[in-house]
Amino acid sequence: MPSTAPVADFDHAQRDALRLNLQKELLGQIPMAAAMQLAIAQWDGEQVELHAPLAPNVNDKGCAFGGSLVSVMTLACWSLIKLAADQRGFACEIYVQDSTVRYLAPVWNDFRAIAHLADGQSLDDFLDILALRGKARTATRCSIALADGTAACTLEARFVALRAKSPLQPANAAQS
Amino acid sequence: MPSTAPVADFDHAQRDALRLNLQKELLGQIPMAAAMQLAIAQWDGEQVELHAPLAPNVNDKGCAFGGSLVSVMTLACWSLIKLAADQRGFACEIYVQDSTVRYLAPVWNDFRAIAHLADGQSLDDFLDILALRGKARTATRCSIALADGTAACTLEARFVALRAKSPLQPANAAQS
Repeated sequence: MPSTAPVADFDHAQRDALRLNLQKELLGQIPMAAAMQLAIAQWDGEQVELHAPLAPNVNDKGCAFGGSLVSVMTLACWSLIKLAADQRGFACEIYVQDSTVRYLAPVWNDFRAIAHLADGQSLDDFLDILALRGKARTATRCSIALADGTAACTLEARFVALRAKSPLQPANAAQS
Repeated sequence: MPSTAPVADFDHAQRDALRLNLQKELLGQIPMAAAMQLAIAQWDGEQVELHAPLAPNVNDKGCAFGGSLVSVMTLACWSLIKLAADQRGFACEIYVQDSTVRYLAPVWNDFRAIAHLADGQSLDDFLDILALRGKARTATRCSIALADGTAACTLEARFVALRAKSPLQPANAAQS
């Protein structure tokens, strides 16, 4: 009988702990994240998914407020990078530099934003460059889909990260 | 002694009534606008200025949350078009189609977003086309500046308006 859980289970548990820790930080430190009632629902290391209910994010027409859509998509991309840095015990500040949003169809329900890196980008390369130079850039994409899978809105955003002066403990610091 | 106020005063009073009416609608119908504590502070017919305090719009770093900045800038542009339509008694639905945001410097204080049409655009042309065809598009620009006048972030956004089926009363309907 093995005395430790399989590596895959450990990775999954570690990722869940980091994800829930970041969600707690966002809700605790960003009043608008709390007002939007967002949740970091899933993260597999390559892709992150944020959820938000319609009610607090509604506009005058009864569908989702564009400001909430872009905020949730931007935070999804930011979270993707932050979680990758957290997983490697890398303390850094991450800033959005620019973004382009396309609003394609109104969103009439609770919604979820799925973010990943843009084509050709690598989280490992990004973090290696950050470690080497203290500064690195990357590009992300995010979308919110309707129930039938049609894209309701998309975001492309570029980020820069700067190494923090006081590093975290490695790997699972967020669990402490 | 004149029995009526000068035309300029009447225009100013009418604009103030429309501006305050729209602010009331935004705060009443969009929970995130209320959470951001935004105000439509000024509108002269060509340019609109929205204000928001830092405290409800802060991020984890203590400066303004990017989602709040883009939300306020998008609403400023939307309000510019909505107020022009309201002034002419034109009932329409206005939707943002796409936007590009550049985050240039962090915002550490209460902030104000100033929106106007993009170069070469005309509100009169836009509303004439809307009246003629039931649909019209226009492009806007908005920026939030630091205390020394440097741009902290900018937004370029395109909008489409669709004529509503039940028109408002002309001119000063919002005052009724």
